[in-house]
Amino acid sequence: MPRLSDTTRRRILYGGDYNPEQWPEETWHEDVRLMRDAGVNSVTLGVFSWAKLEPRPGVHDFGWLDRLMDLMHANGIGVVLATPTSAPPPWLGHLHPDTLPRDEDGRTEWWGGRQHFSHSSTTYRRHAAAITEAMAARYAGHPALTMWHVNNEYCTYDHGDEAATRFRRWLRDRYGTLDALNAAWGTAFWSQGYGDWAEILPARRTHYLKNPTQVLDFRRFTSDMLLECYAAERDIVRRHTPHLPVTTNFMPLWSGQDAWRWAEEEDVVSVDLYPDPRDPLGAQHGALVQDMTRSQARGPWMLMEQAAGPVNWRGANHPKPRGLNRLWSLQAVARGADAVCYFQWRQSRQGAEKFHSGMVSHAGAQGRTYQEVKQLGADLAKLAPHAAGSTVPAGIAVLHDWHSWWAGAQDGRLSTRFDYPDVLRAWHRALWEAHLTTDFAHPEHDLSPYKAVVVPQLYALTDTAVDNLVAYVRGGGTLVCGFLTGVADEDDRVRPGGMDARLRELFGIRTLHEWWPLEADETAACDGFWGSLWSEELEPDGTATETVRYKGGELDGLPAVLRKGRAWYLSTLPEPAALRDLLARVAADAGARPVLDGLPAGVEAVRRGDLLFLLHHGRDPVTVDVPGTHRDLLTDATVTDRLTLGRYGVAVLTEPAS
Amino acid sequence: MPRLSDTTRRRILYGGDYNPEQWPEETWHEDVRLMRDAGVNSVTLGVFSWAKLEPRPGVHDFGWLDRLMDLMHANGIGVVLATPTSAPPPWLGHLHPDTLPRDEDGRTEWWGGRQHFSHSSTTYRRHAAAITEAMAARYAGHPALTMWHVNNEYCTYDHGDEAATRFRRWLRDRYGTLDALNAAWGTAFWSQGYGDWAEILPARRTHYLKNPTQVLDFRRFTSDMLLECYAAERDIVRRHTPHLPVTTNFMPLWSGQDAWRWAEEEDVVSVDLYPDPRDPLGAQHGALVQDMTRSQARGPWMLMEQAAGPVNWRGANHPKPRGLNRLWSLQAVARGADAVCYFQWRQSRQGAEKFHSGMVSHAGAQGRTYQEVKQLGADLAKLAPHAAGSTVPAGIAVLHDWHSWWAGAQDGRLSTRFDYPDVLRAWHRALWEAHLTTDFAHPEHDLSPYKAVVVPQLYALTDTAVDNLVAYVRGGGTLVCGFLTGVADEDDRVRPGGMDARLRELFGIRTLHEWWPLEADETAACDGFWGSLWSEELEPDGTATETVRYKGGELDGLPAVLRKGRAWYLSTLPEPAALRDLLARVAADAGARPVLDGLPAGVEAVRRGDLLFLLHHGRDPVTVDVPGTHRDLLTDATVTDRLTLGRYGVAVLTEPAS
Amino acid sequence: MPRLSDTTRRRILYGGDYNPEQWPEETWHEDVRLMRDAGVNSVTLGVFSWAKLEPRPGVHDFGWLDRLMDLMHANGIGVVLATPTSAPPPWLGHLHPDTLPRDEDGRTEWWGGRQHFSHSSTTYRRHAAAITEAMAARYAGHPALTMWHVNNEYCTYDHGDEAATRFRRWLRDRYGTLDALNAAWGTAFWSQGYGDWAEILPARRTHYLKNPTQVLDFRRFTSDMLLECYAAERDIVRRHTPHLPVTTNFMPLWSGQDAWRWAEEEDVVSVDLYPDPRDPLGAQHGALVQDMTRSQARGPWMLMEQAAGPVNWRGANHPKPRGLNRLWSLQAVARGADAVCYFQWRQSRQGAEKFHSGMVSHAGAQGRTYQEVKQLGADLAKLAPHAAGSTVPAGIAVLHDWHSWWAGAQDGRLSTRFDYPDVLRAWHRALWEAHLTTDFAHPEHDLSPYKAVVVPQLYALTDTAVDNLVAYVRGGGTLVCGFLTGVADEDDRVRPGGMDARLRELFGIRTLHEWWPLEADETAACDGFWGSLWSEELEPDGTATETVRYKGGELDGLPAVLRKGRAWYLSTLPEPAALRDLLARVAADAGARPVLDGLPAGVEAVRRGDLLFLLHHGRDPVTVDVPGTHRDLLTDATVTDRLTLGRYGVAVLTEPAS
Repeated sequence: MPRLSDTTRRRILYGGDYNPEQWPEETWHEDVRLMRDAGVNSVTLGVFSWAKLEPRPGVHDFGWLDRLMDLMHANGIGVVLATPTSAPPPWLGHLHPDTLPRDEDGRTEWWGGRQHFSHSSTTYRRHAAAITEAMAARYAGHPALTMWHVNNEYCTYDHGDEAATRFRRWLRDRYGTLDALNAAWGTAFWSQGYGDWAEILPARRTHYLKNPTQVLDFRRFTSDMLLECYAAERDIVRRHTPHLPVTTNFMPLWSGQDAWRWAEEEDVVSVDLYPDPRDPLGAQHGALVQDMTRSQARGPWMLMEQAAGPVNWRGANHPKPRGLNRLWSLQAVARGADAVCYFQWRQSRQGAEKFHSGMVSHAGAQGRTYQEVKQLGADLAKLAPHAAGSTVPAGIAVLHDWHSWWAGAQDGRLSTRFDYPDVLRAWHRALWEAHLTTDFAHPEHDLSPYKAVVVPQLYALTDTAVDNLVAYVRGGGTLVCGFLTGVADEDDRVRPGGMDARLRELFGIRTLHEWWPLEADETAACDGFWGSLWSEELEPDGTATETVRYKGGELDGLPAVLRKGRAWYLSTLPEPAALRDLLARVAADAGARPVLDGLPAGVEAVRRGDLLFLLHHGRDPVTVDVPGTHRDLLTDATVTDRLTLGRYGVAVLTEPAS
Repeated sequence: MPRLSDTTRRRILYGGDYNPEQWPEETWHEDVRLMRDAGVNSVTLGVFSWAKLEPRPGVHDFGWLDRLMDLMHANGIGVVLATPTSAPPPWLGHLHPDTLPRDEDGRTEWWGGRQHFSHSSTTYRRHAAAITEAMAARYAGHPALTMWHVNNEYCTYDHGDEAATRFRRWLRDRYGTLDALNAAWGTAFWSQGYGDWAEILPARRTHYLKNPTQVLDFRRFTSDMLLECYAAERDIVRRHTPHLPVTTNFMPLWSGQDAWRWAEEEDVVSVDLYPDPRDPLGAQHGALVQDMTRSQARGPWMLMEQAAGPVNWRGANHPKPRGLNRLWSLQAVARGADAVCYFQWRQSRQGAEKFHSGMVSHAGAQGRTYQEVKQLGADLAKLAPHAAGSTVPAGIAVLHDWHSWWAGAQDGRLSTRFDYPDVLRAWHRALWEAHLTTDFAHPEHDLSPYKAVVVPQLYALTDTAVDNLVAYVRGGGTLVCGFLTGVADEDDRVRPGGMDARLRELFGIRTLHEWWPLEADETAACDGFWGSLWSEELEPDGTATETVRYKGGELDGLPAVLRKGRAWYLSTLPEPAALRDLLARVAADAGARPVLDGLPAGVEAVRRGDLLFLLHHGRDPVTVDVPGTHRDLLTDATVTDRLTLGRYGVAVLTEPAS
Repeated sequence: MPRLSDTTRRRILYGGDYNPEQWPEETWHEDVRLMRDAGVNSVTLGVFSWAKLEPRPGVHDFGWLDRLMDLMHANGIGVVLATPTSAPPPWLGHLHPDTLPRDEDGRTEWWGGRQHFSHSSTTYRRHAAAITEAMAARYAGHPALTMWHVNNEYCTYDHGDEAATRFRRWLRDRYGTLDALNAAWGTAFWSQGYGDWAEILPARRTHYLKNPTQVLDFRRFTSDMLLECYAAERDIVRRHTPHLPVTTNFMPLWSGQDAWRWAEEEDVVSVDLYPDPRDPLGAQHGALVQDMTRSQARGPWMLMEQAAGPVNWRGANHPKPRGLNRLWSLQAVARGADAVCYFQWRQSRQGAEKFHSGMVSHAGAQGRTYQEVKQLGADLAKLAPHAAGSTVPAGIAVLHDWHSWWAGAQDGRLSTRFDYPDVLRAWHRALWEAHLTTDFAHPEHDLSPYKAVVVPQLYALTDTAVDNLVAYVRGGGTLVCGFLTGVADEDDRVRPGGMDARLRELFGIRTLHEWWPLEADETAACDGFWGSLWSEELEPDGTATETVRYKGGELDGLPAVLRKGRAWYLSTLPEPAALRDLLARVAADAGARPVLDGLPAGVEAVRRGDLLFLLHHGRDPVTVDVPGTHRDLLTDATVTDRLTLGRYGVAVLTEPAS
């Protein structure tokens, strides 16, 4: 199968979405000149071009795109060609209202924005296939074409009648019989037993709480329908260009897609990443998404979209201070990206995203934004020969699973005071602050490569996953597990005892009497730290080798943290420093070392291949000890034993001469 | 007519909802064993069993229920049999979409949850009657059957076309002519005059404020339609088992039902009660609901549902700390309950309520929850011979009325900074903290049995009710009345002067110039206390015998509290301690005594029949003076003059030997 | 054309909406007596009378209105007759559901409230015209009739199919060709190119952000459709009574109508004004609305509605403290009103507005409210001969435009932390506190009469408007301009450079690198003051004559305020005192003087014609220096050099004897 390296060819792809339909053709030539000055070597065309390419049903206008493809080729800029199916033209909805999605309340989502398509609409799928076929046939042999980008940010739902029909078919495939479905959904409760497949509905508006397994399956179904849409288009382009890789861009920590499963269907894993420039933990959020994407890609990956400046969908959309775009872009390279791209090249003057920044902002070529984009292009060119294609070693795996997230996020759960991503971030932050590079893994993956495995929270686990965790520990692995893990099975059926018996045995828990969720502003005092979000009334079975206890309150003296050999259970979320120190200690015991010791606060260190990336997230200069003599690829300076990083400074060091 | 005592027979019913459809039959036998160990003597079956009992239209499967009824009987456990009509099977909505309710915005409430039935649907009513008839016919003679429980928590609305038809019929019954309706609704304003009954709609979405009397009548209609549904099923079961009592469970302080009127249609008044274990006033909230339910029952009542641990519909669902389930259960007995039941026996492993606790929690028989349930069963057995059937004496009545609540809760009112229940709770709290046992009464009830009558807030009063209050005072009664009382008549028509003239005369008010609502964080200083929520610009007529004045601000020197003989008017809500002390003084003057003097903070005292219940709502031990020599029924200890209550401790003392 | 003075005839109109349908005829006679006692000389009849006047389609009942008109005439009270078309009778919606509006989500707005009409419904327009024709024909010659009031508070939307049809027609008129529409809307982005007029929709619910120019045009269309409804009724009444003026009442700062354009279609500009009595800036809000209405009227205007006490649509509806109604009413006269009217005469006892105050409150004639109304009537009678018809001189214009507001208020903008009216109010407040009387003007108006022009924020400006501003400065005018001005053109297309190049040149800005919106609680330190809401990364071109810089943070040392000659640009919102002082200084330099120097805090001074109004917005007495000898028209006292104003005190002084 084709891979990202077939497109990068030891370069780092640099560029972004280019929507030239918005500009007169004379602007295209200025664009290309600015692209070349900035070292741009890749643009994505076609993402929102359906109406332009097929202005009336079946009538195509490819001339303008032909000219663009030729222009790009003539200037040495590769083209990632997008199927334009995320934004159907107005005529599709007008002629075929069955292509429009319905929300939970039955309301139609009309055209006039984007993504007004039902994943379940046969008519939509037929038209999407047709435009994909036409584009693939036309451009298969074009020398500018380097990759396919199918659709854009798959994220839609549909609760309409055609979705209902497909949902029933999907359920029939999953369960075979109504008896099996009734058992899985627990329909014996609340008189929900289905006697006919035709009675089953999407997760539509109800008077009170919905059946949670119906909701869970509807989310699975939604992810699968979107994946069917993707796969259908992928298969078309693959038929025409079997040598070129295909991708679609994920939204990070987006709940709508089981990205583990999707990644298996992609040649290249790509992601969109938009941390808030004001978020003090923005860099950590970036690292998390980068680690997760790299793990899905099992190697180099593509940063498909980021913003050179502000986005336009937050309450207050902050620009990136001087240097931040470069810093965060190089962080992505450090964590395995072989492509650094943006939405979009030139900032729109009209339409819904005209206040979302571009590589060329409203201020134009003399604006700070483009000037920094140009500098970054030069930096990437220096790094590419050394970094592209290399891998990021990680001794620790963080387990994550969409199905568990979906199952645990239901209405009628014990606490709405936190969401799963909050917990995932808190644990990744602890590892990141301890300078421990981590992969992400699915709970059924082979965990043996890792010295330690961390489970922030896996509310629902299959039997296979539970056995995988137990076997990992029995095989010598170290496991650290957060609360609300192993509560349910894959049907969202609570395990007897409220937590899987195998896990309870693993951690030394006899009885889980009650869950004690904490209020938003509440903490639980423990020996040596305070916990938040959650606490538990646990009765240990006496086999634990180490216990941290709750202090005061109703749980006084009961275990907050239990360790039994190499298996740790945390029934609360320790405060950040405590979780960081605990994980650092556990990792050290397991043989997982931080990237570098003695790093000053705010400096991130990552090894990629032979390189050591040092990234300074602060504004005041800091000095970093780096024993030995290195070369800094960005400055070509020799660094011996220590170096100073200025505001948002980055150094990329070769291995010390030995 | 049959009564609760026909079922209890000097026992206290103990048990709860049992939904065995969720479990394999072998679990039923374990359940019965655990029930017996815990002293459970009553279970409610069938609440959510419609789909199981009638899996296809007209096709019944009673075998499993037959076996359960027999099993219960064989183990001495009585069965409260529920008609399963609150949760229709999927086939009903699928075959008959006219059974589904529509909300105010026209959105359908689909099946997949529960309570997806329109009270106005003729098709629904026909199917509900049929399954009720089939169950009643089959189990009328079963020896396990002790009571009927119709439907569950009636709480639905419908704004659809069939509801519109019934609403018009209901209005025709109420008003006779369109002229009368137009007069009552004040349709002369905003050009709303109706010329044809067919023009009248349910209270559907409008551009701006709705006609308030239309909304009020729609709430009355909704309560009445639900009551029609109840009565139809009640009449069916009564025909088969005229000797057995019938109930349906209220939700406490639920705004949807005029429970005064409903209670008249029930043989047994039952209620569901779920105070938040974290609410510092949870015990007071329980006392309020218990007092209200007892008053509706005019004697012993049934606690149909409570939770042994957490519920699953709050933001954070807190478990009950050790001892709290027992304390609050015995509080219900103290305040007149002859039945202490739960939703549900065994916690679900699947479905929407799997995180709502059960008497047997996920932790099973060894869990703390079941262990405490077992202890409580033993306690109830000790109390039953002495307590069951006896009454709770109360010298004070708090007036409450749903129609007034509905009328006062409209959009376009003077203040949304408080809701009626807040005011009701504040007044009951003051009485509860003064250890004054209170009944609730309807404003048209005979009030002569009471030494004092308290009106927290009755925004709308009929002429009959106003005359009743005036006559009560003239007949020697003491009346304490809160603000926003007597403002409107039963059509929500403001009384001339903004307050009924008879009441103004009663309190010594010449002119009510303006209402001065307070902001959420605002207080009004008065001589000796501060008020909240409300204040008024009152001009007295000079007949008052006592006046407390506002201090400072625009109302400086105007009366905040007026007393004219035995009639008191409070134009603001005094701070808790001030309201408590004022009511204690007024009650004392009227001859209503607290249950016990000198009680330490946090200790509640209630007399029921010959017994004195002492309930300690704190965690640190306290000593209580109880002059004389008593026997504590729970410990069988002799108590002389004083006793100590530990954490959540309860003592139930016999009358002192004289 | 007829004018307001044709109705006032040197009087100040005093009175309000009178909805006598609510009362028995005997009450009418009491009303007239109380009106006469209070000096009421004008009432508005018919606003909500459609159902009463046309109880069945085509069947009229005018008898009651005949009697009322006669009664008013007999008592010397003029009648402003309203077409009753804002509240259609139930039969209209019932017989013609096509008259009902649909919201963005497709939900019907039913009758049962008011304003349940679609502006686009041909059926509605036909029925509205018919009742208007019937009323005009009947009362054209009635001696009581003094003015026409069309409809009431036009404020509705419709997203239904008939609105879609009219929207397409409106767009065709605006753009001529689809190419022009596609260019204006920027449909090249997101694949929104329209190939057929029939594909175009109202701004209905979409999955993600809507096309902003579609939304902008839909707002323009909505304003224009409502204006078509108004004009159709106006033309009918004008045909019958060409000598009488016609008005419709605006809601102040209501976003739904382009009031500049509407005002051109009215003979009299009238407005409804409801500041919150608790708002510390309520008087300033009143002044703003009064200045804006006067500017639309280009002379005396009509205060159509205010409240004598509380309204009923806030969270807590506060009454007016003693004296406030008089103070705010006289403020309106000071700022040019020749009519002081209320909604409504007698407070309703029923219906949705029964807690909205009336001139006669629930307390009746002895209530404080009516007593103060009576006093005010006497005051107005004293002022009328001197004030009516005179003008208010203003040296400064504040520019305001609805299209710019609409364009800037879109989803997907840079900051939702403030709304345009907040900015407008902040700037007007600064001028008001500096005692600088200001007009409002449209950005394309002739600005040459003004010594200084202030632009709080005009996000979108036409080329004509930009040229107008530049020419104004070139012609010697002084311009002070706030941030986010000149960003877009009239299609909401961002100007190259993010700000119009002509304006950048005017202010001395080379490059606008980035916008830096501030968070809600954030400030930006500048030399001498702090700014809020916004900041900018500006690169000056070196031509500025004065610069205030940011201090600290990312923008340290960059210009916050730039002055180039007589053109000022403020890239942040200075704190209130700083903005006040800056504008005072700029105004002084430009020759615009405050009304009076040395005024104590809280005292407002306004000149109207020969009169000096002094309005004291505080409760403690203050002394004001007024050099010379004057007569106070309210007290007939002679005032020499100074006077004392008590709580909410007002003095209206003649020019000093020279």
